[in-house]
Amino acid sequence: MADGEEVSNKQIILRDYVSGFPKESDMFVKTSTILLKVPEGSEAVLLKNLYLSCDPYLRNRMKKAEEGGYDDSITPSSPVSGFGVARVLDSGHPNYKKGDLVWGITGWEEYSLITDVESLFKIQHTDVPLSYYTGILGMPGLTAYAGFYVICSPKKGQYVFISAASGAVGQLVGQFAKLLGCYVVGSAGTKEKVDLLKNKLGFDEAFNYKEEKDLDATLKRYFPNGIDIYFENVGGKMLDAVLLNMRLHGCIIGCGMISQYNLDQPEGVHNLFELVTKRIRMEGFVVLDYVHVYPKFLDMIVPYIKEGKISYLEDIVEGLENGPAALIGLFYGRNVGKQVVVVAHD
Amino acid sequence: MADGEEVSNKQIILRDYVSGFPKESDMFVKTSTILLKVPEGSEAVLLKNLYLSCDPYLRNRMKKAEEGGYDDSITPSSPVSGFGVARVLDSGHPNYKKGDLVWGITGWEEYSLITDVESLFKIQHTDVPLSYYTGILGMPGLTAYAGFYVICSPKKGQYVFISAASGAVGQLVGQFAKLLGCYVVGSAGTKEKVDLLKNKLGFDEAFNYKEEKDLDATLKRYFPNGIDIYFENVGGKMLDAVLLNMRLHGCIIGCGMISQYNLDQPEGVHNLFELVTKRIRMEGFVVLDYVHVYPKFLDMIVPYIKEGKISYLEDIVEGLENGPAALIGLFYGRNVGKQVVVVAHD
Repeated sequence: MADGEEVSNKQIILRDYVSGFPKESDMFVKTSTILLKVPEGSEAVLLKNLYLSCDPYLRNRMKKAEEGGYDDSITPSSPVSGFGVARVLDSGHPNYKKGDLVWGITGWEEYSLITDVESLFKIQHTDVPLSYYTGILGMPGLTAYAGFYVICSPKKGQYVFISAASGAVGQLVGQFAKLLGCYVVGSAGTKEKVDLLKNKLGFDEAFNYKEEKDLDATLKRYFPNGIDIYFENVGGKMLDAVLLNMRLHGCIIGCGMISQYNLDQPEGVHNLFELVTKRIRMEGFVVLDYVHVYPKFLDMIVPYIKEGKISYLEDIVEGLENGPAALIGLFYGRNVGKQVVVVAHD
Repeated sequence: MADGEEVSNKQIILRDYVSGFPKESDMFVKTSTILLKVPEGSEAVLLKNLYLSCDPYLRNRMKKAEEGGYDDSITPSSPVSGFGVARVLDSGHPNYKKGDLVWGITGWEEYSLITDVESLFKIQHTDVPLSYYTGILGMPGLTAYAGFYVICSPKKGQYVFISAASGAVGQLVGQFAKLLGCYVVGSAGTKEKVDLLKNKLGFDEAFNYKEEKDLDATLKRYFPNGIDIYFENVGGKMLDAVLLNMRLHGCIIGCGMISQYNLDQPEGVHNLFELVTKRIRMEGFVVLDYVHVYPKFLDMIVPYIKEGKISYLEDIVEGLENGPAALIGLFYGRNVGKQVVVVAHD
């Protein structure tokens, strides 16, 4: 393809705001055209998208901000937007040039004209799988790092519990905690994931929450001395059971509550008074507030990857048109590890 | 009465662990005898109790610690214990002598032999009402100070909401926030209390939560820009409504949840995902962890009292035998301000 050529551009469009469980039909494929050139005088960049990231938080951006989602809802009739990895085809911005690899907020489409260049990061390390920039080296990696290290000041020997532990973020939190010398238990929703947690990711223990009738009893079994740090990815009943098992001065890192995103009315959490009697801090966070620590995070994580000290599970699906199913699969726990959609390989 | 004399000692005894709403009949008056002398060789002190403090947290000490109460449950068939003001009649401890005035953990009885002397504080300032050491100068005062200043680092101009705002702690938090230059709104359960909050305690606004059908709408009316700091005394539905109205990076100070203490199953709180999207910190605390800041607190509060910059509402009932009714009244909101029981005036 020649510079400045007009080409067809396959896109995944959000049909309308979503309520309840999202369905594939909430999105549809549309083919439009795009000029592979940044408009004259603009500081935008034109991207060829390579990998797209399926993240649970996208569900909350599919509803109006007023209804308890994040501030930047996805606009109906527009392409879904989210994190991805891309190659710069043309640039009006002084920091980017043709051929640069970037990760950041892009569209669910083959090509994107990005005007909000501030939300892109130039990829410096290319001797790792590029898809990692949707996961371990991207937003989920920074999320795990900021949530675990910055919010809770973890210490060697502490008891750490992680829900949705084989997911994009959870699997990293668990490995960070193990590297620090913590006792680490994770929950997941299939036997396969539990096996991966124990045998590939080095968790001390893991359990399938779907097979447990009494989560309070389950947690007491794995944490007879209680939990110091809970990395919260699911909410609802699991949070309620965790509250009963926290230790004095424990910390709950509120990263996500995936079990609640598709409910009309979130489940009630009954045991919050435990926060008072046990002097617990529960703190929610959004990774975008921690972008300033990204360089420090990279300094830590890249050597770990190269030395094989940290593994990363990815669940890779080929083809933009398979993106909606992959995204929706998150809410049924179909993904094993970080869910990535390949739009193009280079 | 002569030193070392054996005298009768009226006591309020906890009949058994309490479930549901406490009743007067959960306690009974018993008259035993006590020798007004510390046993030879003991480091205990013998106290004549003057004022007893009725505090909501006592409800949680009336159940077994395993059932989600505090660690130091009150033992059935023993006197209720809690904070009080007393005069030392005899002392085996080098730090205390006959005639000293103290506040701290004592028994609901006329005379107490206290072996855990560590939980007593010697009263230095006696030119204020001694009953203040059950409230503004005692545990509730330190609670308000630690919760408001230490946990949430409040700033001038912030929007502060306080529930149970005319209570022993809430009325102080509101006045601290006003002195700092915050906008302060409180909720209470009667028109009389609302009037006191606005007209005597200097709150910017106050409302009677019992007259509000939709607490979310109520809070939006008083906080069109949202709440930066919520001082949580009640839990349940109020907390759920507050979560919908918190501002980004807000702070919820978990001091108590009085609306929940007598329920078999605490109400469910549904809006906890707001903690994540709004990056809210919710932190529970127990005042006993902040005893080290008590001298600093006194340095601040005593001048405020003497200069008339802070008022303190007390609801004083005469007679130890009226203690149970006064304590139970807390859970029906019968008290107007700090509930104190006078055992003896000197």
